[in-house]
Amino acid sequence: MTEKVRVCECFARDGLQHEGRFIPTPAKIALIDAFSAAGFPRIEATSYSHPERVPAFQDASEVLKGIQRRPGAHYKATCANLRSVQRAQADREAGFGATELSLLLSATETHNMRNLRATRAEQWTRIAEMVTATSGRFRLVGVISVAFGCPFEGHVDPGVVIEDMRRFAALGVGLVALGDTTGLATPQSVRALFQRASADVPTVTAIAHFHNTRGSALANCVAALEAGCRDFDSSLGGVGGHPAKIQYGEGMTGNVATEDLVNLLEGLGFDTGLDLERLTSASALCEQTLGRTLHSLVARSGFGLLSKTRAHG
Amino acid sequence: MTEKVRVCECFARDGLQHEGRFIPTPAKIALIDAFSAAGFPRIEATSYSHPERVPAFQDASEVLKGIQRRPGAHYKATCANLRSVQRAQADREAGFGATELSLLLSATETHNMRNLRATRAEQWTRIAEMVTATSGRFRLVGVISVAFGCPFEGHVDPGVVIEDMRRFAALGVGLVALGDTTGLATPQSVRALFQRASADVPTVTAIAHFHNTRGSALANCVAALEAGCRDFDSSLGGVGGHPAKIQYGEGMTGNVATEDLVNLLEGLGFDTGLDLERLTSASALCEQTLGRTLHSLVARSGFGLLSKTRAHG
Repeated sequence: MTEKVRVCECFARDGLQHEGRFIPTPAKIALIDAFSAAGFPRIEATSYSHPERVPAFQDASEVLKGIQRRPGAHYKATCANLRSVQRAQADREAGFGATELSLLLSATETHNMRNLRATRAEQWTRIAEMVTATSGRFRLVGVISVAFGCPFEGHVDPGVVIEDMRRFAALGVGLVALGDTTGLATPQSVRALFQRASADVPTVTAIAHFHNTRGSALANCVAALEAGCRDFDSSLGGVGGHPAKIQYGEGMTGNVATEDLVNLLEGLGFDTGLDLERLTSASALCEQTLGRTLHSLVARSGFGLLSKTRAHG
Repeated sequence: MTEKVRVCECFARDGLQHEGRFIPTPAKIALIDAFSAAGFPRIEATSYSHPERVPAFQDASEVLKGIQRRPGAHYKATCANLRSVQRAQADREAGFGATELSLLLSATETHNMRNLRATRAEQWTRIAEMVTATSGRFRLVGVISVAFGCPFEGHVDPGVVIEDMRRFAALGVGLVALGDTTGLATPQSVRALFQRASADVPTVTAIAHFHNTRGSALANCVAALEAGCRDFDSSLGGVGGHPAKIQYGEGMTGNVATEDLVNLLEGLGFDTGLDLERLTSASALCEQTLGRTLHSLVARSGFGLLSKTRAHG
């Protein structure tokens, strides 16, 4: 039997966060509906960040209210603080909110301070408050940035990441994304951390959240897969990640492209559960919405699945 | 001790073959000199194709005459037929020729016919004549295209590729590049073929020659590496491969980018023997020569080597 893997489509939040212009609410809804139609089991839909700090998602509630939900799929919103959890709760009570919330943390002090404007200790206090405020009504996803290396501090002790995962587990967080934020992971470090995570923190499902900053994201996904990982974050067209050169002291970066990841996973015989024709349409809609050619290579060449009749369908 | 791997820089031939405009001879010489300075042990320098059929390399002899040779490095020229081997011989006798010749073949009849205008049987006859004509004066590299899947015939029997390697071995050809011409390989099929090759044809060194048509090239390089491969072909900026959509029925494609491959190999603790500063300069020279931004991500982000002091040097 074909083994299942789950891909979370991050285009609507991680992908759109750093676009220069505001994407109109109906366009966002059309994108998320296209992702639902393609069959993604998890969709990162929006962020409850402060509307003035992150104007891209000032329409978070309208987006979540407007989308058509596929039964069984989870719709995720990013939460940076207690206020954002309270907004998520209010929307949930009104009947249209996110079903999954992500809670952010960095594995190093410097990155945590620059990205979240808090020390790691302060961030853990916030996370505990946020978890309490969710009242068990959401599926929670911890996100650990720079888990495989930091652009400011260099090497990251895997023991710190494992300890962070344990703290998430103790708070009842069942999913933790391990982020290679600036492409410093190698297949070696990925394999080691995912193996250690499943051995040391077995109650937590580790998610591979890899950026293609240096072209290695798919190689790192394979290493995670071989270490037992079955959950992946990606963004159609490879959009998103941390593009801010000034803030991160690095050049162009981006999420691993969903099209290329799905081609690889299906090519290896795993079942993503996705409809490849609808995925291709969603990929085209992403390019159309942003008005430019994005970074997926499969978007140009098509799927290359030798053993699947649906590959060229 | 750090294990060594060898990267062959293919920009000057595979990379330039499909450029729309002729790159002037001095510019080609400057590029190859930059590759030599960076320390590549093998450099694909030019092609002895018919000057009217492939005008890009009408200056093959002038280029080989003009370059500065690094002791120990091999300079390769592509040979499509007997006439091209005779030209390579003449240049060698004049004291400036290539030291390595590549002999082309496709694993399927359809691709061989479209790419080389011959049946596979005819191509093997040609190859045997060409090998005889080299009089043992060159290092020879067999190149098997579409070794992991064919855009026309789909699945390729690994047994056919192994048999081709045996025939190359019987002709005294010590190196054989296994080409994933249109990005149909998976880490699984790569690992299987490289393992089988080293078991069944141990006298031949298999080279990974992967195109990044669907973004999987680096993942496939890691699979080859894990199967014992230590020889890789790549092109700075990821230029080259088979870009002709009409001819191949596929979209954009290209070689795996040298910058990204080297970053990965060094990140995994292998020693490419390359000077990363000079490699960065060579990468910039490639973009300058073609007058456009190329496809390497490391060219944008820089090397991301946590454990190497020279990484940010």
